[in-house]
Amino acid sequence: MAAQHWVRFAEADRTGFGRLEGGLIRVFRGDMFDHPVDTSRVVARAAVRLLAPVQPGKVIALWNNFHQLRERLGLAVPEEPLYLIKSPNSYLAPGETIRCPRIETKVVFEGELAIVIGRTAKHVPREEAMRHVFGYTIANDVTAADILNKDASFTQWVRAKGYDTFCPFGPAVATGLDASKLRVKTRLDGVVRQDYPASDMRFGVEELVSRISFDMTLDPGDLILCGTSVGVGSMKPGSLVEVEIEGIGTLANRIEP
Amino acid sequence: MAAQHWVRFAEADRTGFGRLEGGLIRVFRGDMFDHPVDTSRVVARAAVRLLAPVQPGKVIALWNNFHQLRERLGLAVPEEPLYLIKSPNSYLAPGETIRCPRIETKVVFEGELAIVIGRTAKHVPREEAMRHVFGYTIANDVTAADILNKDASFTQWVRAKGYDTFCPFGPAVATGLDASKLRVKTRLDGVVRQDYPASDMRFGVEELVSRISFDMTLDPGDLILCGTSVGVGSMKPGSLVEVEIEGIGTLANRIEP
Repeated sequence: MAAQHWVRFAEADRTGFGRLEGGLIRVFRGDMFDHPVDTSRVVARAAVRLLAPVQPGKVIALWNNFHQLRERLGLAVPEEPLYLIKSPNSYLAPGETIRCPRIETKVVFEGELAIVIGRTAKHVPREEAMRHVFGYTIANDVTAADILNKDASFTQWVRAKGYDTFCPFGPAVATGLDASKLRVKTRLDGVVRQDYPASDMRFGVEELVSRISFDMTLDPGDLILCGTSVGVGSMKPGSLVEVEIEGIGTLANRIEP
Repeated sequence: MAAQHWVRFAEADRTGFGRLEGGLIRVFRGDMFDHPVDTSRVVARAAVRLLAPVQPGKVIALWNNFHQLRERLGLAVPEEPLYLIKSPNSYLAPGETIRCPRIETKVVFEGELAIVIGRTAKHVPREEAMRHVFGYTIANDVTAADILNKDASFTQWVRAKGYDTFCPFGPAVATGLDASKLRVKTRLDGVVRQDYPASDMRFGVEELVSRISFDMTLDPGDLILCGTSVGVGSMKPGSLVEVEIEGIGTLANRIEP
């Protein structure tokens, strides 16, 4: 099946969702993940404002899931997926502004591939995992780097990654892709800073969905951010960060000046 | 103002919310946190099934927030609130069954006071914090103890505390209480295991709401679990755990046999 690109949008006082077709959005109604209904209406993409493409109940973010970054940092190969949760207030639409917390801290970008769950997953064996994946989107797992190890007794993953606006994702959810063929490219003010293959993951898409589904039920719309690889860096006020995955699109956000 | 006790409930095919009045629930409609409307209808509490009393967008859980437990464990006094997020699939109604994960692990109870946010809080100074608090409920911050430090490089707080059914809370949200006068009592199969004063907190209610609101926007219905104190222990299959806070009620859940 050819790739489809699903988006959510706001126009005037209402929101909707649909499929990108060139410069148009074909509007659907109902449930994006379960037999959405074609309304036959189309709107110009330029005439609406794109929202984050899904409304996750939770966003799970992987740590230490790429071999190349792990080797660079001298970390052990994890035996199981290691993850945290990004808080809902961190969700941000494509094009919107990442805000700096009111603290002295380095704010870093992490360009990532994100799995979008389409069907409830609980205790799912690896060979059935793909039936629960709707598609893929792009995320920037923004992190307040200096917060992480500020307290010696407790690594503050949830706080460092949970500030308002610290989880931009989108612009679209692409279906019908083979994740192992994707590359994640991050540009900071036009300069390529990350360019790594998704195939370098310690735990690939099927493993992640299956293993995490034994810990916690995954619901339609939930995201799994697959982790990042080499090239992470800090963003200066006013910087533009673009994360591009060919086949999905480009997620662009500016950090507040 | 006298304490009020708000609950959510299910009857037949619908859900509702209201105020406890002895053995009755006075049913309201609209927004529990913002001028709910009295429908004049009452239902017998015994005729409905209580749900978790609010539907949080996020549940923030404090670590190392009680002096007595900190001293017992020989931990440093934290300079800032240290916390994680409990995933939404862990939320559980009063009376429902805590399920064991499919792993060999000790599952422990942690009886806790929980703050219920009633009004959006962002960058709120300490002296205004109470205006954003709707009331208090009771939580059991269930934890898979052996998971926490299973990986030497990454403490798995979110996973250990995020299994399905690992966040029972309720039965009611009580308004009009002075948190500093409350005591948290946990009974395991009828035997008192925890009995500690909320006044022993490193960061009290106003400090928690204020400080966390500078990290992340707190929304109506969000919970802050204040952390636990001494007496935490593991639950055997079939055990009944009751967390009681006089003035709020008793949260009772059984772990699956």
